[in-house]
Amino acid sequence: MKFSFRPNEGAFYELFTRAAQNLVRGTELLNELALPDVEVQSVSERLTEVEHDSDKITHELYKKINSTFVTPFDREDIYRLGSLLDDVMDHLEAVGNLLYLYGLTKLPSLPREMHELVHVLDQQAKLTAEAMPRLKSMKDLEDYWIEINRLENDGDQAYRMLLVRLFSGEYDALTVLKMKEVADELEAACDSFEHVANTVETIAVKES
Amino acid sequence: MKFSFRPNEGAFYELFTRAAQNLVRGTELLNELALPDVEVQSVSERLTEVEHDSDKITHELYKKINSTFVTPFDREDIYRLGSLLDDVMDHLEAVGNLLYLYGLTKLPSLPREMHELVHVLDQQAKLTAEAMPRLKSMKDLEDYWIEINRLENDGDQAYRMLLVRLFSGEYDALTVLKMKEVADELEAACDSFEHVANTVETIAVKES
Amino acid sequence: MKFSFRPNEGAFYELFTRAAQNLVRGTELLNELALPDVEVQSVSERLTEVEHDSDKITHELYKKINSTFVTPFDREDIYRLGSLLDDVMDHLEAVGNLLYLYGLTKLPSLPREMHELVHVLDQQAKLTAEAMPRLKSMKDLEDYWIEINRLENDGDQAYRMLLVRLFSGEYDALTVLKMKEVADELEAACDSFEHVANTVETIAVKES
Repeated sequence: MKFSFRPNEGAFYELFTRAAQNLVRGTELLNELALPDVEVQSVSERLTEVEHDSDKITHELYKKINSTFVTPFDREDIYRLGSLLDDVMDHLEAVGNLLYLYGLTKLPSLPREMHELVHVLDQQAKLTAEAMPRLKSMKDLEDYWIEINRLENDGDQAYRMLLVRLFSGEYDALTVLKMKEVADELEAACDSFEHVANTVETIAVKES
Repeated sequence: MKFSFRPNEGAFYELFTRAAQNLVRGTELLNELALPDVEVQSVSERLTEVEHDSDKITHELYKKINSTFVTPFDREDIYRLGSLLDDVMDHLEAVGNLLYLYGLTKLPSLPREMHELVHVLDQQAKLTAEAMPRLKSMKDLEDYWIEINRLENDGDQAYRMLLVRLFSGEYDALTVLKMKEVADELEAACDSFEHVANTVETIAVKES
Repeated sequence: MKFSFRPNEGAFYELFTRAAQNLVRGTELLNELALPDVEVQSVSERLTEVEHDSDKITHELYKKINSTFVTPFDREDIYRLGSLLDDVMDHLEAVGNLLYLYGLTKLPSLPREMHELVHVLDQQAKLTAEAMPRLKSMKDLEDYWIEINRLENDGDQAYRMLLVRLFSGEYDALTVLKMKEVADELEAACDSFEHVANTVETIAVKES
């Protein structure tokens, strides 16, 4: 019989992994928005479903923290990591939702820099989903957080260039304001991935 | 003679409660802004007074942390909770101040969604003021944080609909920009109430 | 022979001090932008260089945390303080970069309130650089954080007055949007200095 001193710890890693896999589903849905003849309302609704699923995972995680005697690492860090993964999902959902609500997809095309930002998010989501199971061993995580930070810099650059374009006079003021809201959510998602990675780094520093 | 192992702890709960009661005074003042013939400058000034009083409470709290040997829970959590309650007040004060400074109340009426947001804040403030004294027993707090989170979702929804209206073409670009600043402070206040509730939850998790 | 129980701790204070001195270099560069016939691109590039240097200091700090057995105070607090000093630099660099990217320095002059905000930042940077070496003794730090908070209030006031001017109709909507981005970075830098001071206060409270 296999004996584990920390019988419940597997469940924590599984919840983190599921939360991160939802982020991959989220960025894949955002990628669909670049396709011709996309049904924006349907993408927005599917994003909302994924977001609700993430909420459930987060609550399951919080309940598990409360009902577990020995947690794999600090309760507060588990709590924070869960809450930050949830933040990313909120921003991804907001992007799809705002694009639909503001009718922005009726424009001939969205600025190229928006697609660049979605591409950065997609890579960040995949790296995060791959890293979560490695929390168990606390090994091979350094590449993950370095790469997330590098991608966040790329995202920052794309965001700045997006604003330069938005303010160039190519669009009218109200369209600029709408796109700016979407741009801010894209950038906030990018930042949130970095916050997740920084928290993983903090945990690894403490546990090492 | 009554003996208390933690003689000072009552003072902490009292300071948290007073800080939260000030938030109720704050949202009540914002509610006055919906009344006909309201004196906006006077409301803004009274908000600033309440905000100054909150600052005093926060500093009293910090001094108490420094001068108390055994605190009812982690020093850092007391510090954080006090600072987050202070954040809410700052946002409430900003709402009144900006409405006055930008002359927005000279408009025939403010968008309905702004009043909805104020209503959400009012409910959050009351729930928070009722919850603070329960920190002592750490009991019956779960309903409080669940309800605050639910209200924050309502607030988010009202905020999004507010932006849809602002960007609809009903107002000129500069008026949109001014209202957007007010909307952002309303939404930030709503979020801050959630941060307070999340901190209470974290403390309860640790102490349980 | 001098004996130190904590042989590495001097290195931590030195890294914090170097990070804060870079912030002084940053605000001095922003001050140059007020000079007639300034080369904006050159200032922006030098700000980016200082920002890269700050990144290196932050990484050196993180490595030191990992390789040191007994740290002068909580690992997590060292981590947070380093990361917050880095945040200030990011905002200062963004100010210079956006002014250049948006071509705002081609305007006859920048609003007076922008210069006021830079002046606040300059004072905050100098106070922070002076305070960092005092972390060693944990003495005479109270004046530092009180003064930083006072300056942050001044900055807030200047920021609000800047927005009133931007929304007054003096500039066209796109110019307003561009300046608003710069204003937000200035205000965020001002806030970040306060976060640094609050963290120093938290550390001092714990260590006392």
